[in-house]
Amino acid sequence: MSAAALDRHRLSVCDILAAIEDGALAPADVVAESRSRITARDAEVGAFVTLADETASAIGGPLSGIPVGIKDIFDTSDMPTEMGSSLYAGHRPRFDATLVSMARTQGAAIVGKTVTTELASLDPAGTNNPAAPGHTPGGSSSGSAAAVAAGFCAAAYGSQTGASVVRPAAFCGIAGFKPSFRLLPTVGMKTFAWSLDTAGLFAASVRDVALFADLLTGRALRVRDELSLAGLTLGFYRTKLDDSIEPAMVDALDRTRRAAEKAGVRIIDLDEPGALEEGRDAHTAIQGYEASRALMHEQRSGGDSLGPKVKAILDDGAGYTPEEYDIARRAARVARKAANGLFESVDAIVAPSAFGPAPKGLSSTGDPTIAKLWTLTGNPVVNVPGLATENGLPLGISIVARFGRDARVLAIAAGLERTFSGV
Amino acid sequence: MSAAALDRHRLSVCDILAAIEDGALAPADVVAESRSRITARDAEVGAFVTLADETASAIGGPLSGIPVGIKDIFDTSDMPTEMGSSLYAGHRPRFDATLVSMARTQGAAIVGKTVTTELASLDPAGTNNPAAPGHTPGGSSSGSAAAVAAGFCAAAYGSQTGASVVRPAAFCGIAGFKPSFRLLPTVGMKTFAWSLDTAGLFAASVRDVALFADLLTGRALRVRDELSLAGLTLGFYRTKLDDSIEPAMVDALDRTRRAAEKAGVRIIDLDEPGALEEGRDAHTAIQGYEASRALMHEQRSGGDSLGPKVKAILDDGAGYTPEEYDIARRAARVARKAANGLFESVDAIVAPSAFGPAPKGLSSTGDPTIAKLWTLTGNPVVNVPGLATENGLPLGISIVARFGRDARVLAIAAGLERTFSGV
Repeated sequence: MSAAALDRHRLSVCDILAAIEDGALAPADVVAESRSRITARDAEVGAFVTLADETASAIGGPLSGIPVGIKDIFDTSDMPTEMGSSLYAGHRPRFDATLVSMARTQGAAIVGKTVTTELASLDPAGTNNPAAPGHTPGGSSSGSAAAVAAGFCAAAYGSQTGASVVRPAAFCGIAGFKPSFRLLPTVGMKTFAWSLDTAGLFAASVRDVALFADLLTGRALRVRDELSLAGLTLGFYRTKLDDSIEPAMVDALDRTRRAAEKAGVRIIDLDEPGALEEGRDAHTAIQGYEASRALMHEQRSGGDSLGPKVKAILDDGAGYTPEEYDIARRAARVARKAANGLFESVDAIVAPSAFGPAPKGLSSTGDPTIAKLWTLTGNPVVNVPGLATENGLPLGISIVARFGRDARVLAIAAGLERTFSGV
Repeated sequence: MSAAALDRHRLSVCDILAAIEDGALAPADVVAESRSRITARDAEVGAFVTLADETASAIGGPLSGIPVGIKDIFDTSDMPTEMGSSLYAGHRPRFDATLVSMARTQGAAIVGKTVTTELASLDPAGTNNPAAPGHTPGGSSSGSAAAVAAGFCAAAYGSQTGASVVRPAAFCGIAGFKPSFRLLPTVGMKTFAWSLDTAGLFAASVRDVALFADLLTGRALRVRDELSLAGLTLGFYRTKLDDSIEPAMVDALDRTRRAAEKAGVRIIDLDEPGALEEGRDAHTAIQGYEASRALMHEQRSGGDSLGPKVKAILDDGAGYTPEEYDIARRAARVARKAANGLFESVDAIVAPSAFGPAPKGLSSTGDPTIAKLWTLTGNPVVNVPGLATENGLPLGISIVARFGRDARVLAIAAGLERTFSGV
């Protein structure tokens, strides 16, 4: 049995489920195709660290036939969970993380564990970017984004403490969904900084990630109708970091603006309020303080075996006092309120997902600075794929909505994605 | 070497550290005394599930010489962590929980893992109450409260999703400190319900628990001066549950009121606002929904091997929809704001820690209903020991303060404790 859904370069959640519904495809076909692609091509991508022995999606359920990759910081009872760190070599959790259990309960086929940077931090792990070979796929959810971009699986789990979902999605030219803080349970996911860590999802398109999120959580998140963008107000977000935005991204933002205007959107410019500028600065103290506590034992045990970037974050973080941490937390609270206030005048915010396309080489996962603000504030963000540089490197645009408006951010992002593809 | 600090029935953090400072006691003496007491008497109490092989407090540090018991839901790299459940028999985590690392870093001697009810829920685990033999010590932090009450260790870790720190402290006649939500990191502590789970501390007296918390966290939490209660306003909290308060507790609240008035406190009565009544009701939905997700894999694997009470919570919890959960979360947010509002008119709230003293027998850990509200709101609570029934059963009084005012709640609780002891 075959179907058009499997002829494509990337696996689409929407297309696969439609083909299964139509009887054109059986769940086992998709899983077999996924395994065969991984076997054939993962040596050049390096997206997976462990493959599941058996991924039969036998129990049925709404996600039956959807091959899923799991970032290797989520506990799995049937595969090692190594956190990208030699400290966790061969580590076998007794039970699945909550999100892993939820995927299995809904019938998804977990095909393997994907490469993460060490302890989900900034030291690159060697995964290549399928959409821009020789360039970083971003991080820390490097393997998950690469696995979806390479067409190895239809969805994948990531996590974001700074910009580790939005950035790899942007660099790999796929959809990334960082939901409102705590929409997706993080139980059984390795902690880096407890007030920032956010589980997120990857899929080929915004519609795909929305349908996957809907079926995974039982929440009404799918893009139900072709939302008309006409009449919406989008705010283009301007910050003091804008001087660092690369020309290709400036151009992508211009194209986004023109496409939105053509679709009947009212555009306004939003200058970053001071409270949000201070919130972005507070991220460093909160992440450092919490990471140095969350990973206190690993830091003591790991010593110089830890990667230099994660080691620096932990060493610096240990220097923050509780008083400095409390000041940063208060700044974060003020920033969250200010973020809410932005949505008095706009339906959603448009911002760059990164300063530019994926940097060349695999020695850095890129800069999270511009996107990490929305992790601190907890607002839902979707990376919209579809734009690229003249040389074909993906450029990602972020749509940000009010806290708790996850269905809305997905719907608006899907509308924008459609204007990019010209459909 | 010996010292008066070790002649007492209970081990006092303040007295031990003063004796060590004076040179009257060496840290190793206290640890040896702790081990000897446990060996001699834990067969009749049942406070510990595992004893550490070696508890030398060799590295120095401000908590050097303080023997600590750790509830067996906190990961320890040198001892099994069995969660009170056959599902975790022999489970060995690779790294210490953050709070365990923090205690070791400060020089505390971790003497063993204390008995928890299964998965920190409501099924009793057989620990006896040293302050009321034949009565429950409360739960879920049964072993930690019993270990401090029996004089086995000077401090112990607990956790509270409903009333699992405040209630056992009350039933065992010791101090229990449930800090503001997230003051103590829960990384490496088993999750039951992520928006409620709060790590907490036990010690013999309020001054002891405050000094321990201060040295553990590096926060200014110790009771520095003998706070005068004169001029403070305390609100006695009245709810629709008051009809269920037992006569002995009604009497204890009356005695508290008279002692406070005598100390120059202004007393007012506070009727529970509707928003907080609804908050207490919302606790059931939030706990059930989150526990059934946090423990999804354990529920599936455990089946009928799970205790009936935890099984019922998980089975009921699985029935809540995301929409019902969101409604409960909104009620919780409204309740938190209403709780803040209460402290416009009072410095702290006085409330019963339980409906009465520890129930007879070991077949129940008692009723958490009256205390669980403050877990939902995240306010800091201290159980003040010192009162008892005519038959000598401990009765616990809770002091509750505004969110983030942990030093204040400890200071006021210490002041009240002093009026109880008549010093």
